[in-house]
Amino acid sequence: MGAALALAERTRGRTAPNPNVGCILVADDRVVGRGWTQPGGRPHAEAKALAAAGAAARGATAYVTLEPCAHVSPRGPACADLLVAAGIARVVVALGDPDPRTDGAGIARLHDAGIAVATGVRAEDAARSMAGFLTRRRLARPFVTLKLATSLDGRIALPDGSSRWITGAGARAHAHLERSRHEAILVGRGTWETDRPSLDVRLPGLEERSPLRVILSSRPHPSAPAALPPSPDGRGKRRAAPKGEGERETVSIDSPAAIATLPADHILVEGGAATAAAFLRADLVDRLLLYRAPILIGAGKAALGDLGIADLGTTHGRWLLHDARDLGTDRLEVYERTPCSPA
Amino acid sequence: MGAALALAERTRGRTAPNPNVGCILVADDRVVGRGWTQPGGRPHAEAKALAAAGAAARGATAYVTLEPCAHVSPRGPACADLLVAAGIARVVVALGDPDPRTDGAGIARLHDAGIAVATGVRAEDAARSMAGFLTRRRLARPFVTLKLATSLDGRIALPDGSSRWITGAGARAHAHLERSRHEAILVGRGTWETDRPSLDVRLPGLEERSPLRVILSSRPHPSAPAALPPSPDGRGKRRAAPKGEGERETVSIDSPAAIATLPADHILVEGGAATAAAFLRADLVDRLLLYRAPILIGAGKAALGDLGIADLGTTHGRWLLHDARDLGTDRLEVYERTPCSPA
Repeated sequence: MGAALALAERTRGRTAPNPNVGCILVADDRVVGRGWTQPGGRPHAEAKALAAAGAAARGATAYVTLEPCAHVSPRGPACADLLVAAGIARVVVALGDPDPRTDGAGIARLHDAGIAVATGVRAEDAARSMAGFLTRRRLARPFVTLKLATSLDGRIALPDGSSRWITGAGARAHAHLERSRHEAILVGRGTWETDRPSLDVRLPGLEERSPLRVILSSRPHPSAPAALPPSPDGRGKRRAAPKGEGERETVSIDSPAAIATLPADHILVEGGAATAAAFLRADLVDRLLLYRAPILIGAGKAALGDLGIADLGTTHGRWLLHDARDLGTDRLEVYERTPCSPA
Repeated sequence: MGAALALAERTRGRTAPNPNVGCILVADDRVVGRGWTQPGGRPHAEAKALAAAGAAARGATAYVTLEPCAHVSPRGPACADLLVAAGIARVVVALGDPDPRTDGAGIARLHDAGIAVATGVRAEDAARSMAGFLTRRRLARPFVTLKLATSLDGRIALPDGSSRWITGAGARAHAHLERSRHEAILVGRGTWETDRPSLDVRLPGLEERSPLRVILSSRPHPSAPAALPPSPDGRGKRRAAPKGEGERETVSIDSPAAIATLPADHILVEGGAATAAAFLRADLVDRLLLYRAPILIGAGKAALGDLGIADLGTTHGRWLLHDARDLGTDRLEVYERTPCSPA
């Protein structure tokens, strides 16, 4: 299942509105097929793995990070049917699919065909891996990551606004990798106009993954059309398909809550301080990426604007350190919203 | 030597103007004596260890964190002579003593008596252990530790000044332990008048170790006499002797540089932001204790006032992470000034 979860990471941020799923087929202690949801959401992981395995899939065990789908769509067959037809003997599933068209029906169909099914294997890791899809299902909005790059004393720039550079090359490369795992990157109008950030992925081989650019602005930005109104199923229809630099889409939204209308299941909020604070005040941050450089700045620009906190007691228990790593002399800490905090 | 270094920690912050030294005597693979510099600076570590060993010291190896002293003083004999007289066969030394009355003369005397001597064993750890003594010798001032307790976004209080509590009980207890390892604690006049901090050691068994209180103020504080002028050897004469709460000394200095006049080799600067910045601007911070709570505060009081930084490039390479540990959900990071930074 660990290998299937790793495969699922390959297209995180490029499969919306579908989940990024990983699948691995094992027969006689040998991997006979691997698959992951393809960019744009199709084909599904199981279809790719079965196609790779061919006849070797007969009698194999399938490890899938999400319950195989039970619904036929114009874009492809139901994965549960594919697994049955291929003669898979056993299916190990990490997480049930909350999509009402599946939601247990995929597992039932496997059962009915005489396939042994185990569920709940590394379910928590799978939920983290598919956080975008699950957040969209549960809360009808994308999963939001807030990125901050600060000095030890929490500054993001000198008083004159200069911020090149606080963190080093390793941290900045990691931040670009994170961009490639999001369908959309959001900045505030002030940052957009002052810094003119390109918001692209400047990593060799990943240039084409640069996500949709979103500007948070109370006034519509002249060069950025407002996000399309949601379609009847509640999803914007436009995709953050890879485009050349000149054609990359930029849209504007007028409030943090409007992220729900974007054709994205993962949004990376990159600042500035007022925008970061607006998302935190609206309780719309699920994950915090904190890049910290071992420097002291003193007077300068703070990482966050006003959060409206009147009592320190209310700030505690909200963030849990999930991961930390050194990036050169900088350090990345990844915090997640705790389950007990209001959603 | 590791055991000797651990013994030396027992009186860190209570031996000025003498160094806190540790000594362990080993004969036939057995520890026959242990000693460390006593509060106030005498007796020395070797004298205590030899007294503990008695006749068992004959033929033993002595591990000492600092070169045994070669000078007789009214307060005690020269340790090199004591080691010779006790019949010690071998001496292992971490660090040479820069005191001009010893500075190689201690080792020479051991050599001349036919004792085998090894030097430089864990010298870097010993230098860190005796940082206060060495900084006083090299720079004619105490070793300065700056403590900051912040949120993830670098805030030390809400806009109204409330800071109870940002960090949890574990971090606060650790901060009190750090106080007990310093001869003096310094705060700015603003913090002194607003927060009325007791600046004592509130840990069971360590209440008597509460250090000298120092206020940084451009105006003399009515209840705090100015620090005494330095004595002819450059040291203030008053000691931060343990006193009851009512009698604890409080002195006032008018600039960071005036710490040189204090009867202390280790000073803990606890804030506020302007005072911390004043010490950083004066390049008088050797060690940074950063306690961080996993909370976001947004608008509030910054950890540091203006450092006068005009170019981010100049801020890099100055601080090196030396130690880090979790204290409950908080995290302590200890940074040291890098050797390459100007002193």
